[in-house]
Amino acid sequence: MSFFRPNVDAIHGYVPGEQPQDTGWVKLNTNENPYPPSPRVLEALERVIRDRLNLYPDPLSTKFREAVGKLFQVDPDWVLPANGSDENLTILMRCFINADDLVVYPYPSYILYETLVDLQGGRHERLQLKPDWSWDMPTAQAAAAKAKMVILPNPNSPTGNRWSDKDIESLVPPRGLLVLDEAYGDFADQPHKGELLKSSRGKQIVVTRSLSKSYSLAGLRVGFALAHPDLISGMRKMKDSYNCDKLSLAGGTAAIEDQEWMLSNTAKIRATRGRLSAALQQLGFNVVPSQANFVWTTHATIPHKQLYERLKERKILVRFMVFPNYAHSPTGEVSGLRITVGTDPEIDQLLAALKEIV
Amino acid sequence: MSFFRPNVDAIHGYVPGEQPQDTGWVKLNTNENPYPPSPRVLEALERVIRDRLNLYPDPLSTKFREAVGKLFQVDPDWVLPANGSDENLTILMRCFINADDLVVYPYPSYILYETLVDLQGGRHERLQLKPDWSWDMPTAQAAAAKAKMVILPNPNSPTGNRWSDKDIESLVPPRGLLVLDEAYGDFADQPHKGELLKSSRGKQIVVTRSLSKSYSLAGLRVGFALAHPDLISGMRKMKDSYNCDKLSLAGGTAAIEDQEWMLSNTAKIRATRGRLSAALQQLGFNVVPSQANFVWTTHATIPHKQLYERLKERKILVRFMVFPNYAHSPTGEVSGLRITVGTDPEIDQLLAALKEIV
Repeated sequence: MSFFRPNVDAIHGYVPGEQPQDTGWVKLNTNENPYPPSPRVLEALERVIRDRLNLYPDPLSTKFREAVGKLFQVDPDWVLPANGSDENLTILMRCFINADDLVVYPYPSYILYETLVDLQGGRHERLQLKPDWSWDMPTAQAAAAKAKMVILPNPNSPTGNRWSDKDIESLVPPRGLLVLDEAYGDFADQPHKGELLKSSRGKQIVVTRSLSKSYSLAGLRVGFALAHPDLISGMRKMKDSYNCDKLSLAGGTAAIEDQEWMLSNTAKIRATRGRLSAALQQLGFNVVPSQANFVWTTHATIPHKQLYERLKERKILVRFMVFPNYAHSPTGEVSGLRITVGTDPEIDQLLAALKEIV
Repeated sequence: MSFFRPNVDAIHGYVPGEQPQDTGWVKLNTNENPYPPSPRVLEALERVIRDRLNLYPDPLSTKFREAVGKLFQVDPDWVLPANGSDENLTILMRCFINADDLVVYPYPSYILYETLVDLQGGRHERLQLKPDWSWDMPTAQAAAAKAKMVILPNPNSPTGNRWSDKDIESLVPPRGLLVLDEAYGDFADQPHKGELLKSSRGKQIVVTRSLSKSYSLAGLRVGFALAHPDLISGMRKMKDSYNCDKLSLAGGTAAIEDQEWMLSNTAKIRATRGRLSAALQQLGFNVVPSQANFVWTTHATIPHKQLYERLKERKILVRFMVFPNYAHSPTGEVSGLRITVGTDPEIDQLLAALKEIV
């Protein structure tokens, strides 16, 4: 006899990318930043380690919210810090989704969205992207019109493309919220600064951001949501009182305050991304022009799983992904490799290995 | 128009104890440990700060689960680490409580339980404790028989008393789970080591533990649940992939591995607790014999709120608590002060202040 809710029993659970705990890997599979975090983050962490870890953190995360508010030119009441962006996605589900509420999101996309809807017990619908990863707009708008929540990752993962503000605004549900997941937002050529929140539909938009990628802090778990204070104050009820620890808050604040460091690393990654994309094309791969810190690439003849395995034998990890039930594929599925943009030497190793393999 | 679920709109949200961000306070209000964490924790944190914070943590928390498993003599599959014990309480609600499911817990007790049930949208019932904080057993058993989940904090907060294993076992619901919240378990004169999990009803028991109190790590946010692997594997689906960050896992592991440090601090706190309890009684207070790192105290004539305010004027923070709708009180409510056991000098300051006030 199981005591679990039926929808929990029915779910396999989200499987994150491989995280080998030994060293020696070229790790291009989970979109981590290859560069270390700002030295200011390390200084802040050093200080906090010696500063009364026996006491609880600030439950209001005041300093962190102030730093984020300054960066995005909003009042701190517009900011909800979280234990990683995933926590804010969970909080959003728990705040807004009842059993019969519909959540829609593009497909292929971040598969965690579907897991979170299923765990909450809501209904979901995938918005099939066209083969060039643009919207099938009439169908998407019709689905959004019925939805309580639309989730758009922008740039999208695994495809790396980015949609226009016009496309995004046209998908705000009339009776619900649009969640704009900007985990990769800082890698775009023209990053957003929350402009959509100030648009006419802004009160129905929640932007989620992560410090894992652009700020090189995947190990620390810090993210935040930006939205109108009416939304943030309700979402705050759902979070655990002390959802962010002292180290995350201090490290996250220092990271946000060192924009120069983040901008310099994201610029390097954009440059390497261009080089990687061009080299993959020269090797016969199809590459989606990327606005993120990864590229989505496919090969017309060599099976993607085989490519993934050959690379793994050489201690190079990339993400092999299969999306079944893709509407626009003759085989009924789409597969490919999502390759994180590492350092230049890492990408050189990858390209040398691929040259041997293909 | 609100897009929030009606039960979210209806809730005020849990209000944690005051956390002044300035120094100079004698802080006896949120049950923090007055002693610093083990030097081994600080060493572990120092190492991790310099060890690739740009990479994600181990999503399986392997080393931490091994350390906990060794301590409680269970396989690591019996352990679910969390971002503080509160996260495991949230995970339990989301895993097991449907809209018509009943959750019961003692009253007075940790008021977060009720908030979590309400946020999930389940039904709740308070088990009114008798004036000596023991069970009204026939009523409690009848409620447990209907419940999907019984939550028992042991020792209880704010009263500090502890119930016998026999009492606890008799409240395991026939068709549900008993959650034994042992956040304060290490402060008991005879701490549990998960023995109830090996009892005949053990497969229906989940023990939750916190490193915030006995291990002096409130600022780091680490807790864990102990239960049969059938329960833990389902609960794992509900957690975010990377719910514990690298620093929490490394610090938490080091803390668990330094039992001597924890045992020495909890022994000091037990000694101070005895001294505080006796001195309060000499000052005319009623004191519940405590098995936790706080004491629940009441005064027959001076209003508790006034005592709290007079102490706050002197930069001494204790927790003033009111529990309305208490069945066994002629006034319909019970109030009192919950005083955390601080260092000996802190308790001397408190006692000197109280001597002036009463």
